[in-house]
Amino acid sequence: MKALRYFGAGDIRCESMDDPTIADERDAIVKVSLCAICGSDLHIYHGHGFSDDIGFCVGHEAVGEVMETGRGVRGLKPGDRVMISAAVGCGACPSCLAGDVMLCATQSSSCYGLSHKLQGSQAQAVRVPAADINARLLPEGLSEEQGLLLTDGLPTAWMALKNADIRPGAVVAVVGLGPIGLMAVEGAFLLGASKVFAIDLVASRRQTAEALGAIALDAADATDLIREQTHGRMCNAVVEAVGADASIELAIRLAGLRGVVSCLGVSQTRRFPFPMARAFNYGLTFRSSTCSVPLYWPELIPLVQTGRLHPERFISHRLTLAEGADAYRLLDSRADGVLKVVMTP
Amino acid sequence: MKALRYFGAGDIRCESMDDPTIADERDAIVKVSLCAICGSDLHIYHGHGFSDDIGFCVGHEAVGEVMETGRGVRGLKPGDRVMISAAVGCGACPSCLAGDVMLCATQSSSCYGLSHKLQGSQAQAVRVPAADINARLLPEGLSEEQGLLLTDGLPTAWMALKNADIRPGAVVAVVGLGPIGLMAVEGAFLLGASKVFAIDLVASRRQTAEALGAIALDAADATDLIREQTHGRMCNAVVEAVGADASIELAIRLAGLRGVVSCLGVSQTRRFPFPMARAFNYGLTFRSSTCSVPLYWPELIPLVQTGRLHPERFISHRLTLAEGADAYRLLDSRADGVLKVVMTP
Amino acid sequence: MKALRYFGAGDIRCESMDDPTIADERDAIVKVSLCAICGSDLHIYHGHGFSDDIGFCVGHEAVGEVMETGRGVRGLKPGDRVMISAAVGCGACPSCLAGDVMLCATQSSSCYGLSHKLQGSQAQAVRVPAADINARLLPEGLSEEQGLLLTDGLPTAWMALKNADIRPGAVVAVVGLGPIGLMAVEGAFLLGASKVFAIDLVASRRQTAEALGAIALDAADATDLIREQTHGRMCNAVVEAVGADASIELAIRLAGLRGVVSCLGVSQTRRFPFPMARAFNYGLTFRSSTCSVPLYWPELIPLVQTGRLHPERFISHRLTLAEGADAYRLLDSRADGVLKVVMTP
Amino acid sequence: MKALRYFGAGDIRCESMDDPTIADERDAIVKVSLCAICGSDLHIYHGHGFSDDIGFCVGHEAVGEVMETGRGVRGLKPGDRVMISAAVGCGACPSCLAGDVMLCATQSSSCYGLSHKLQGSQAQAVRVPAADINARLLPEGLSEEQGLLLTDGLPTAWMALKNADIRPGAVVAVVGLGPIGLMAVEGAFLLGASKVFAIDLVASRRQTAEALGAIALDAADATDLIREQTHGRMCNAVVEAVGADASIELAIRLAGLRGVVSCLGVSQTRRFPFPMARAFNYGLTFRSSTCSVPLYWPELIPLVQTGRLHPERFISHRLTLAEGADAYRLLDSRADGVLKVVMTP
Repeated sequence: MKALRYFGAGDIRCESMDDPTIADERDAIVKVSLCAICGSDLHIYHGHGFSDDIGFCVGHEAVGEVMETGRGVRGLKPGDRVMISAAVGCGACPSCLAGDVMLCATQSSSCYGLSHKLQGSQAQAVRVPAADINARLLPEGLSEEQGLLLTDGLPTAWMALKNADIRPGAVVAVVGLGPIGLMAVEGAFLLGASKVFAIDLVASRRQTAEALGAIALDAADATDLIREQTHGRMCNAVVEAVGADASIELAIRLAGLRGVVSCLGVSQTRRFPFPMARAFNYGLTFRSSTCSVPLYWPELIPLVQTGRLHPERFISHRLTLAEGADAYRLLDSRADGVLKVVMTP
Repeated sequence: MKALRYFGAGDIRCESMDDPTIADERDAIVKVSLCAICGSDLHIYHGHGFSDDIGFCVGHEAVGEVMETGRGVRGLKPGDRVMISAAVGCGACPSCLAGDVMLCATQSSSCYGLSHKLQGSQAQAVRVPAADINARLLPEGLSEEQGLLLTDGLPTAWMALKNADIRPGAVVAVVGLGPIGLMAVEGAFLLGASKVFAIDLVASRRQTAEALGAIALDAADATDLIREQTHGRMCNAVVEAVGADASIELAIRLAGLRGVVSCLGVSQTRRFPFPMARAFNYGLTFRSSTCSVPLYWPELIPLVQTGRLHPERFISHRLTLAEGADAYRLLDSRADGVLKVVMTP
Repeated sequence: MKALRYFGAGDIRCESMDDPTIADERDAIVKVSLCAICGSDLHIYHGHGFSDDIGFCVGHEAVGEVMETGRGVRGLKPGDRVMISAAVGCGACPSCLAGDVMLCATQSSSCYGLSHKLQGSQAQAVRVPAADINARLLPEGLSEEQGLLLTDGLPTAWMALKNADIRPGAVVAVVGLGPIGLMAVEGAFLLGASKVFAIDLVASRRQTAEALGAIALDAADATDLIREQTHGRMCNAVVEAVGADASIELAIRLAGLRGVVSCLGVSQTRRFPFPMARAFNYGLTFRSSTCSVPLYWPELIPLVQTGRLHPERFISHRLTLAEGADAYRLLDSRADGVLKVVMTP
Repeated sequence: MKALRYFGAGDIRCESMDDPTIADERDAIVKVSLCAICGSDLHIYHGHGFSDDIGFCVGHEAVGEVMETGRGVRGLKPGDRVMISAAVGCGACPSCLAGDVMLCATQSSSCYGLSHKLQGSQAQAVRVPAADINARLLPEGLSEEQGLLLTDGLPTAWMALKNADIRPGAVVAVVGLGPIGLMAVEGAFLLGASKVFAIDLVASRRQTAEALGAIALDAADATDLIREQTHGRMCNAVVEAVGADASIELAIRLAGLRGVVSCLGVSQTRRFPFPMARAFNYGLTFRSSTCSVPLYWPELIPLVQTGRLHPERFISHRLTLAEGADAYRLLDSRADGVLKVVMTP
C-alpha cells in the first residue's frame, strides 16, 4: 500500500510499504478513507521525534472502513465505517473499557505513527489494536470530516477546556489558534465563557477566532491588553495550544488569581523555568495532558450531531495522500489561511 | 505592650512597642491570649523576608479577646473571644464576604507580621482590620488551642487536601511532616484515602505520622518504596508541605498518571526547573496556593467540634512570649519532637 | 406614596400607603424606578397567598435609587442605583454574607410583598433590610431592565439549571415557557445542552422558544414526541417552571435513566402522588427550591454584560404602576404574547 | 444442582434444578462458593415479587469459581475466583463497559433471581451473562466474604452515600440499620461526616451503629432528638435504607435546608404522598436508585484492601444452602442480632 513515511527531518514521502495484517485476535484492519496531519506530527517532521526509527508510517488521525477483524473483535465487521482514536490503550483494563485510555492499567497507552511499533494512519490502511475499544462506528448523522476531527483534535481541545475548569461566566484565553486552539475557542463559548481572548501571531487565524466571537490579540501585546480589558484581574482559565516554552510562559502570565492554565500542546522541555513564587501567590493550577480520546466521545458526539460544534469548519485544505510531502510543507509554513490539512488516500 | 519584633536574620526579640489602636472604623483591637509560630515565619527569621522593614512585630496565628471595636464593626464586642484569620482581606467585596480572602477584589489580600504595614500577632495585642470578616467568635466547644490552629495551620492543610482532589480510595503522599503536613495526613484519611505515605527526614515526625495510620518513609528512598508498594502506579495525590525546591521535585516524582501535586509551602523560587515533558505525559495537575482561611471554617469547625480532627495534638511546646527568641530557635532547629510551638503573652 | 396593594382574590389596586422608613440601622430606603410582576405574584392574586394579611404592598422584583440608608449600611449611599434581591436574608450569617440567602442561619429568609411584615416593591419606594447584602449596585453596563431581571427571574432560571446538573451534550426539557422558562431555555444552551425541548400550551411562547433554538412542543404530545426523538432515552434534565401538579408529573415522565427534575415553580401541594417505584428504577433525582438570588450574580452579571444572555428580551409589556390592576389581569390572562410585565412607578 | 427456589409467599425451598449451561458465547458458568440473602430478596419472599414466575432460583449476591466460559469471554478462565455483580448489563455498550450498568444503552439492565429469565445465585452454580463485564476476579488480598459484600451491599450503601452528596463536616442520618444501613454509617464517616445519626427500631442494630461512632436513635423520637441536637438545622444528608413509605417520610423530615435524601431501599409505591411544598421551601434534593455495582469497585476495592472499610463485620449468620428456608425465616424475623446471612452451597 501507499503510506507517508518518515525518513529524517523534513523528509516525509508517500511511498509503498507492506499492507498491515492482523497480529492479534483483537486487531482490525481499517482501509483509511480520510486522514489528517496533526500539529504534533510536525515534531516528527522537524526531526525531534519520539523514537529513533526511520521509515515508519506517520499520522494518527483517520477514519475509514473495516476490512478485516481478528476473531476476538466484538461489534465490528467488515464494511463498518469507523473513527479511530488517536490514543491507543490495551482495551482490556477498566480504564480503557471506560474510554480513559490515558489511565490504561498497563501504563503504556500509545499513539499511531511514532515508530515502527505501531504504524501510522496516513496510509491506505492501518492496523487498529483492541479495535472494539480503540475505534468506534462513525456515529449516525456525522460526516467523515466530522468523524475525522473526533479522532483527536476536537477531543483534545475539549479535554483542555475540561482541564481548565471553565465555569459559566469565566474569562478565558486561548493561546495558539491552530485548528485545536480554534476548536477550544468555540468550545469555551459552549461551556459558558463570558469572554474569550484568542491569541496568535497569524492574522488570518485571529480573524477566524473573531468570527467565532472571540477578542483576538497578537501575542506581542496580549498581556497588556488583557490586563486592561479585565481591569487587572486577568483570566480565569487559559488554554495553551502550542506547546512551546514561550507560549506556556505567556499562558501563565495571563492567569489571574486562582486561574487555571491547561496545556494541550506537546512539550518536550525537561526543565521549564516555572515561576513558583507567582504560582503560590496566585493560587495557580497548572495542567498538561495527552488526551483520552474516547472518554470525550459521549459528550462531543451529540454536540456535533446537533450542530452546536462545527469542527469541520477548521479544515482549510483537502489534498491526496500522494501530495503528502506538500501537505506537511504547507502545514509547517504556518501560512495565512492554513488550518487543518486532510488527505484522501 | 510586649511583642516579638524582627531586627534582622536570626534576630527576633521580645521588646516593647506601641499598643495598637483603632485606625479604621472596621478595626478591632484584640488582646492576644495564645499565639503560635508558623513554618513560614522562619522565612522571615532567616532574613529572606517579604519586605525590607526592620522592627516590625511578627506572627500571624493568634486567638484572643476583643478589647475595642471601631464603630463600623458588626457582631463583635469587647469581651468576645475570637480566632483571627491569618489571611486578611478587605472585608467588603463579595469574595471576602464569602470567606474567600485570597480572591479579594482589591487583589491585595495580606497577612499579619510581614512588615510595618500590618503588625503581627506574636504580641500582647493586635489590630484586626475588617474585624467582623477577618476574625470570628471562637466556636462553641473549642479550646483556645484548637481555635489557634484554625487560624492558619489546619485550614492550610485542608486547602492543600482540597486542592489535591482527593477521592475516596486514593493513594496519597504527604511530603514534609511539620504540623501542617501531619494535619494533612490526618485529613487525608478523613477524606477517604486508602493509603497515605508520609515523608520526612526527621524520625520522630515519621513516628507521629505512623501513629496516625500512615506509612512513613524517609525522603531518601521514598520514590523507590512508593513505586514498589504501588506496583509502579505511584500516587493519586501528593501534598507538598515544605516549599523547598527539592521537596517540590520529589512531590512531582511521586505523582502517578493524572496525579495532582498540591503545594502549601511558601516558595520564593522564580525559575523552578519544571519537568514539562513529564507533566504532559503523566497528565499532571500542579497547584500551589496561599489559604483563604475563613473559607474552610464551615467544614472544619464541626470536624474539630466532634473530634474527627485533633489539630491540637500537634502542639509540642508551650512557652511564653518572653521566651520568643528561644521559641524561634527551637522551631528552627527542626529537632526531634519539635512540632507546633505556641506562646502565651 | 403609591403602591400596589392586595385586598383579596383578584383585587390588587394602586393606592396610597405610608412611605417606608428606616426601621433598622442596616435598612435602606430605595426609590423604585422599575418593578415587575412575577409568576408567583399570581398565587397571591388568586387568593391563595402566603399570609392572611390584607392591604399589604405586593411585589418582589425591583430596581431603583437609594434615597436614605441607616447608619449601619456599608458601601451604599443616597443616589446609588441598585438592584434588590427578591430573596431577603439576615445579612449577617456566613451564608447570607456568601450570598446564599436560602441557607440563612436564622432559617427565616424571606421575600418582599407576602404580608405586612415586609412590604412589597411594586411601589414608589421600598425598605430594604440588611441593604448592603440584599441589594447591590447596578453593575456597570447593565440597563435597568437587565438589572430588574437579575433580581429574581434570571437567577431563578439559572438556579434551576444548576440544580438540574446539566452537562455539555445533555438533552434538556423545559416545562412551562413563561419568562423564567424561556430564560431557562436560553441558559440551557449556554450550559452546553445539545438539544432543548420547550413545552407550553401557548403557541406564541413556543414560537419564542423556537427562536432561541429549542424544539417546541405542546404539553399534550410532548411525552410521545420526546420519546420518539430521543429513541426512548428521554431527557437528562428537566426544568419545571410552572409549579402545578400536572406539570411536575409531566416533568417526571420526561426524565430518562438517572435524569434530574429541577423545579422552580412555587408548589403548595402537601401530598403530591410521587411515583416512588419509577424513581427507584430510573435513578431519578428530584429537586425543588427557592432561589438564593445573590449567589448567582457573580456568574450571571458577566454573562449579561457580554451579551451571552439577554433576559430583557422576555419583557413583553411596559406599563405604569397606576395601571397595576390591568398589569395583573394581563399577566393572569396568559394571553398570546404576554411574557414579562414591568411597571414604572 | 441444588438451588433455593421460590414457590410462593413464604415458600422458598432448597431443591434440585437443572445445572446452568452456556447460552451465549459471552456467558460463564460460576460454581458458587458463598452466597447471601439481600433485604430485597424479602420482597420476593413476601410474595410481592417482580414477576409472576414460580419455581425460579432466587438470590443475586454470590462469589465463586469459574467452571466454564463461552468462547467470547475475555480475561476469565476456569478456576478463576470471581465476584458477580448483582446488577447485570449488556456488557457491550459504553455505559456497561464503564461499569455503569444502570445506564445500559439497552435500557434493560437486570438482576439475578427475579424470574426464570435470569436464574438466581443462591445455588450451587449460576450462569453469568457478559461475564467479563458482569463479574470480576476476586481482588488480591480480599476474603470471599469481603468479595461477597462487594457484589451488592457495599456498593449499594456507597452509591447511596455518593447520591447523598456528603461533604466533609456534614451531619448525616441513616434510616434503617440492616447490613446496608450499617455499611452506610461506616462509609459516612469515611467520607468525612462530622456526625452520623443512625435510626432503627431494633436495639441490637442501634448498638452496632454506636460501636461505629454513630448516635443511635429509635425511629419514634428521632425527629425530635435530631432537631434538638442540631439546633433545628436537621441533617445535610439522609440515607434511607429500608424502602418503606414510613421510612421515606421520616427521611424527608430529617433533611434540613438544601438537604439531600438518598434512597437505596426498593420501593414499589406508585403514589407516595410527597410533601411538595416542603420540598420547595427546603430546597430538597430527593434521589432514589438501583446500583451500578461495578461502577463503585475501583473506589471500594482499595478501601477494603487497606482495611478502611470492613463490610464483612456485618455478617451475623453463616449457614448452608440446605438451610436456606431457615435462613430466609431468620432474616425475615428481624430478630435482635440478625444482620447479614450468608450460605455455603
